[in-house]
Amino acid sequence: MEAYFDNSATTRVLDEVKDLVVKVMTEDYGNAAALHRKGVEAERYIKEARAQIAKTLKVEEKEILFTSGGSESNNMALIGTALANQRAGKHIISTAVEHPSVYNPLSYLEELGFEITFLPVDKDGHISLEELRAAVRPDTILVSVMYVNNEVGAVEPIAEISRIVKEKNPKTLIHADAIQAYGKYVIRPKKEGIDLLSVSGHKIHAPKGTGFLYIRNGVKIKPLIYGGGQQNGLRSGTENVPGVAGLGLAAKIMYTNHDEKIRQMIELKDYLIDRIGELDGCVVNSKKGEGSAPQIVSVSFEGVRAEVLLHALEDKSIFVSSGSACSSHHPGISGTLKGIGVKPDLLDSTIRFSFGVFNTKEQIDYCIDALKELLPVLRRYRRG
Amino acid sequence: MEAYFDNSATTRVLDEVKDLVVKVMTEDYGNAAALHRKGVEAERYIKEARAQIAKTLKVEEKEILFTSGGSESNNMALIGTALANQRAGKHIISTAVEHPSVYNPLSYLEELGFEITFLPVDKDGHISLEELRAAVRPDTILVSVMYVNNEVGAVEPIAEISRIVKEKNPKTLIHADAIQAYGKYVIRPKKEGIDLLSVSGHKIHAPKGTGFLYIRNGVKIKPLIYGGGQQNGLRSGTENVPGVAGLGLAAKIMYTNHDEKIRQMIELKDYLIDRIGELDGCVVNSKKGEGSAPQIVSVSFEGVRAEVLLHALEDKSIFVSSGSACSSHHPGISGTLKGIGVKPDLLDSTIRFSFGVFNTKEQIDYCIDALKELLPVLRRYRRG
Repeated sequence: MEAYFDNSATTRVLDEVKDLVVKVMTEDYGNAAALHRKGVEAERYIKEARAQIAKTLKVEEKEILFTSGGSESNNMALIGTALANQRAGKHIISTAVEHPSVYNPLSYLEELGFEITFLPVDKDGHISLEELRAAVRPDTILVSVMYVNNEVGAVEPIAEISRIVKEKNPKTLIHADAIQAYGKYVIRPKKEGIDLLSVSGHKIHAPKGTGFLYIRNGVKIKPLIYGGGQQNGLRSGTENVPGVAGLGLAAKIMYTNHDEKIRQMIELKDYLIDRIGELDGCVVNSKKGEGSAPQIVSVSFEGVRAEVLLHALEDKSIFVSSGSACSSHHPGISGTLKGIGVKPDLLDSTIRFSFGVFNTKEQIDYCIDALKELLPVLRRYRRG
Repeated sequence: MEAYFDNSATTRVLDEVKDLVVKVMTEDYGNAAALHRKGVEAERYIKEARAQIAKTLKVEEKEILFTSGGSESNNMALIGTALANQRAGKHIISTAVEHPSVYNPLSYLEELGFEITFLPVDKDGHISLEELRAAVRPDTILVSVMYVNNEVGAVEPIAEISRIVKEKNPKTLIHADAIQAYGKYVIRPKKEGIDLLSVSGHKIHAPKGTGFLYIRNGVKIKPLIYGGGQQNGLRSGTENVPGVAGLGLAAKIMYTNHDEKIRQMIELKDYLIDRIGELDGCVVNSKKGEGSAPQIVSVSFEGVRAEVLLHALEDKSIFVSSGSACSSHHPGISGTLKGIGVKPDLLDSTIRFSFGVFNTKEQIDYCIDALKELLPVLRRYRRG
């Protein structure tokens, strides 16, 4: 049996999506900027994807900007709005548990003279709303908060965060990094007071190299990439038509029978957490049910190094992650795990299991059997 | 019959490339940053593509940076080096006939306080080497020149340009926008004195949303996208593994039996130019043989509006371009055509035919027959 439990790192492309990508690469391969039929056809794929995505968020089609992925979406949201709004102020608020594709653009903005406040999180991975309120200033142009934490699945109350921020400074923009949230939650940017929302395609069974940024109509933002003026001049470059079409279809599929899909995923999560309870010396860092994201289970295994366990599981074709797997080969020590108060000796013993639409209960049984066999051996080896 | 003569706008993906992309999307779909087997596998695809591409240019593998396409490559080359080298000077030289993905980043740099000199071109589309020599200053940090012009196929003598520039200021970097040149010419950055070279995947039968930038070892450059530190921190974001693998394979295929492929393409070009000679009132703006790029034939049709002819040809499933088709729906009047001295009344009557590996002589015969039928009708209509 094979059990791929690393869906928060990346997912397998859906077969329907693959078929569409192939059709667009080999039959309907026009450049959307071309004036002839093949161009019009390409343009139609992009329009349809835009409509499919806008529908999942209940936003306008023109508010969707296609990018090359989650990192570009986050960079555009942060650098693009900071540079466009710097006359209004140079203060930005974020949190101590953001993904590197938020943290590192913020560090770059710091170099350019912006001031960044990073709010700490409590043991549940949440920022303090009081500290947030206190941090908002007249020159705060942007607040950037992760919707779902990629390491433990903690969910931030974005709507409340937005309300508090805008009460104090109505001009402050709210950016949500929704890379682990989109497809898993019904997100309503208009209701939740979100001005910018970043999404990655390959986390929802769409092709790698795709993503989008929701930009509320009226938000001032500068491009990262200049050129032929595609996408209203906000993101130049020949549109990745097969990728965009695939992303639109994947979004549509993920939000079809969505409640049912998510209920099944939560069942898998709860089942895994329950069965982890059968094992000795394990601390689960994620919550059951709706207390944390449906797809992520973070577990610390006492007395076992995460990397060793990861490779032992890999030998049984079980694929998991240590750390977030988004920082290329630099797992280091997770800021999130430290942030939520995981004991120091467990920081390096933590594994993330993450689900996608292809996972089954049988795979979890198989994985628990493997853990029951491996953990005593690995612990003996470590102590020996 | 169908005749797609718009390959300089975009190309159909090769079947071998499509098969590889599908395999990587649905079987070997790991995140290259993951520590387990699926990650190692993904990493291997990237390494192989890097090696395949490096081999075509005789450069080192680590000098290849994968991007989301030609526009990102050009933006990175220009903005990335300008910001990283601004202490050495803020003067940049380019030409009057660049693609918008070069021209517009340069305009952005102008906003940031950089000074840009745009050199004019002669009737062959070439800059004056004397004017170039005169323009280079001690504070010139970068010279950016198109390798092959996308509208008429004029080829700039990059090696000579580099020699002249570096003679006067050895520290000045040379960037070549090779988006229409790669795959058509044997390019040797080391020999030709090129420090940065931009390439787009979808112009060489690889998927859209792929491209690369050759960056000579030692060149100082800043990222456009910050995050997880992929590609040595120069371009963060989960690598588009299927796209990258497809790009590597397409590059390898284009440079296999390369002389033969290019000889065939030049034959097609010369055959089209010869047969255009049978038609009245046509001015060919490209050169036969090795006088201009093998894949591009620009023709001005007296007394016919380009857009009208384009749609008339489209009705016969012949696909061509008016203008460069890279500026989304803003064809405007071409700077290149004006630059090379096309008569004002022909500027709006110019069509670009561009070839790829799927084109045949029969398609050209079919196209000439169509033109013989259409031109008299369209001209009568126009005059009527």
